[in-house]
Amino acid sequence: MTTPLSIVLFSGTEDKLHAAATLVAGAAAMGRPVNLLLQYWALEAFRSDRIDSGGRIESGGRLAFEAEPGSPTGSAALPWVDTFRMAKELGEVTIRACSGSLDYLHLDVANLDPMVDGAAGVALFMADAGDDASITFI
Amino acid sequence: MTTPLSIVLFSGTEDKLHAAATLVAGAAAMGRPVNLLLQYWALEAFRSDRIDSGGRIESGGRLAFEAEPGSPTGSAALPWVDTFRMAKELGEVTIRACSGSLDYLHLDVANLDPMVDGAAGVALFMADAGDDASITFI
Amino acid sequence: MTTPLSIVLFSGTEDKLHAAATLVAGAAAMGRPVNLLLQYWALEAFRSDRIDSGGRIESGGRLAFEAEPGSPTGSAALPWVDTFRMAKELGEVTIRACSGSLDYLHLDVANLDPMVDGAAGVALFMADAGDDASITFI
Repeated sequence: MTTPLSIVLFSGTEDKLHAAATLVAGAAAMGRPVNLLLQYWALEAFRSDRIDSGGRIESGGRLAFEAEPGSPTGSAALPWVDTFRMAKELGEVTIRACSGSLDYLHLDVANLDPMVDGAAGVALFMADAGDDASITFI
Repeated sequence: MTTPLSIVLFSGTEDKLHAAATLVAGAAAMGRPVNLLLQYWALEAFRSDRIDSGGRIESGGRLAFEAEPGSPTGSAALPWVDTFRMAKELGEVTIRACSGSLDYLHLDVANLDPMVDGAAGVALFMADAGDDASITFI
Repeated sequence: MTTPLSIVLFSGTEDKLHAAATLVAGAAAMGRPVNLLLQYWALEAFRSDRIDSGGRIESGGRLAFEAEPGSPTGSAALPWVDTFRMAKELGEVTIRACSGSLDYLHLDVANLDPMVDGAAGVALFMADAGDDASITFI
C-alpha cells in the first residue's frame, strides 16, 4: 500500500494555497492518497463564506500576490479552490479540519466548504499518516 | 524501530510555534520519537530571557496573532511553551539548537531554555533523522 | 538505494533560502541525493539577473533580515548562493524549475542561474521523489 502524502496546511495566503493545491493535484494524478489537515489561516481560507470571494489573508493581514508590486495578475492560473476540487474528484484526497484550530477560531465544520470531510485531532491525523511518515507543512 | 519525526523549526511566530508544538505533542503521545532542530527565529523564541515573556517575533518584526485584526485572543489555548514542555515529559523529544544559527545570532546554548538539549550541526541532525527520512520544515 | 531528500523551495527570502541551502549541503555531504523544485518566489531568487545582486524579496516585498531591527549583519555566514553551488559540486543535487511557476511568472529556464538543471512539472518531481516519500516545503 502506498503511503499517503500527508500535509498540514497552515497558511492562508493565496500563493501557498496554490502551491499546496498543486502538490495535492499532482499526488492525486499519480494515484497517491492525500491526507490533508487544515489549521489556522488555512481554515479561515476554507470558510464557506470566504472561499470563493477571493478574499485571502495571511498572518499579518496582507494580501499576498496583490501586495507584491509588479507581480503577475495570473489570469491564466487555475484558482487554488478549483485545483483542490479537481484533485478531490480525481483521486483519494481527504481534507480534514484540525479540531484544535476549530476551537481556537470558534469555527465549526459546518462553516467550512463541503470539500472538507470532517474534523480530526492531530493524533488521528498522524496515525493516518503512518508510523514512519513525515509531514509536509505548508 | 520507529522513524523519528524530524522537524526543522525555523519560524519564531507564535502561530507557527504553536503548530509545531501541537505536532510534537501529537507524536510524543503516540510514542513516536521527535528529533527537532531549532534555527534562526525559533532560536530567538527559545531564548531564556524571552520564552516566557510572550514577546514573539517573526522575520518582519510583526507580532503574529496580535497583528491580525479581529483574531481570537486564544485564552483557551495552551501556550506553545507549555505544550513543548508537556511533550518532553510525555515522550522522547530531542530539541537541539542548530550550531550554524547559534554562530550567526551570536548565541550560546546557555542562553536558551533548559528544554534545549544541546547544539547540533545539520549533518548530525540529518544522520539522526535517518537515510530515508524526510524533514518537516516549519 | 537511498531515497532522495525532496524539497519544494517556494520562498524567496534570504533567511529561508539560506536554511534550504544548509539542508541541501548537509544531505549532499552525507551522500544523499537531493531533488529540489523551485516555485514562485524561489524562482525569482534564482533569476540570473538577481541571484548575485543581493536583492531578495518575500511575498510582501520586505527584505527579510534587513527588516529586522538589530538583526545580525551576518558577515560570517556563507551566502546562500555559494552554499547551493558548493552542494552541487559536492553531491548529486538536482535543481529544477516548476513549469507551472515559470508560466505564471512569464519566465524561461534560460533566465535562471545555470545551477538550475531544467524545468519539471509537479508530477515528474513527485515521481522522482518516490511513492512513499514526503516533501519538505520551504
